[in-house]
Amino acid sequence: MIEASDCDPQVLADADALKRILLEAASAGGMDVRSTYFYKFSPTGVSGMVVVSGSHISIHTWPETGYAAIDVYTCDPESRPEEAVEKILEAIGAGYAHITEIERGIRDEDGTYTHTILSWDEEPEESP
Amino acid sequence: MIEASDCDPQVLADADALKRILLEAASAGGMDVRSTYFYKFSPTGVSGMVVVSGSHISIHTWPETGYAAIDVYTCDPESRPEEAVEKILEAIGAGYAHITEIERGIRDEDGTYTHTILSWDEEPEESP
Repeated sequence: MIEASDCDPQVLADADALKRILLEAASAGGMDVRSTYFYKFSPTGVSGMVVVSGSHISIHTWPETGYAAIDVYTCDPESRPEEAVEKILEAIGAGYAHITEIERGIRDEDGTYTHTILSWDEEPEESP
Repeated sequence: MIEASDCDPQVLADADALKRILLEAASAGGMDVRSTYFYKFSPTGVSGMVVVSGSHISIHTWPETGYAAIDVYTCDPESRPEEAVEKILEAIGAGYAHITEIERGIRDEDGTYTHTILSWDEEPEESP
């Protein structure tokens, strides 16, 4: 789960560009796309969803503040969610990202399931 | 984000039932459904996604272990995600749930965005 700051407002407002970016990110992450859904809000902002086999990537954008909330979720241990995340952050021109990685479905000793949580910050490098 | 344990394996294996449950949950949470996507894995397990206006609900199930990973995401301050979560946990017969609430898009003093994280456990009451 990523809060991306200082993003390119033009990209965040462009549903077609975001769709292309999420599809490329899914591909970079080794994810098999099943379905997509993109919705442009009035006057501004986009909600986008790419449903991947057993997983999904979503983005919700606020171009007016350069902010985007991104989720990259995967059940497939063969996929590379980190690569999908890096691809998205680069493509939307994020200057700063607060990232939380949640590992789902960890089996506790009592047989119930929990998750582990790890957070960090990134200042993505500018692409050349 | 919810890890639900000790769920009804028959419900977790039933894509149609899960679709009905997520749609009812969206309605209970005051969310406006835009699109749905459900996929049944072979031999077992379901991935389901309900795209709501500016939000989404997803479920990924493992009937063989009674486990489901659920996300209820909303950008709409008028919606009631807690009610959607309770509805889902009750309908899938969850005996135990580990829940993490992440508040997205919190603006820090330096103008970047972060999120806050709060976790707790629940033992949902049996429905009558």
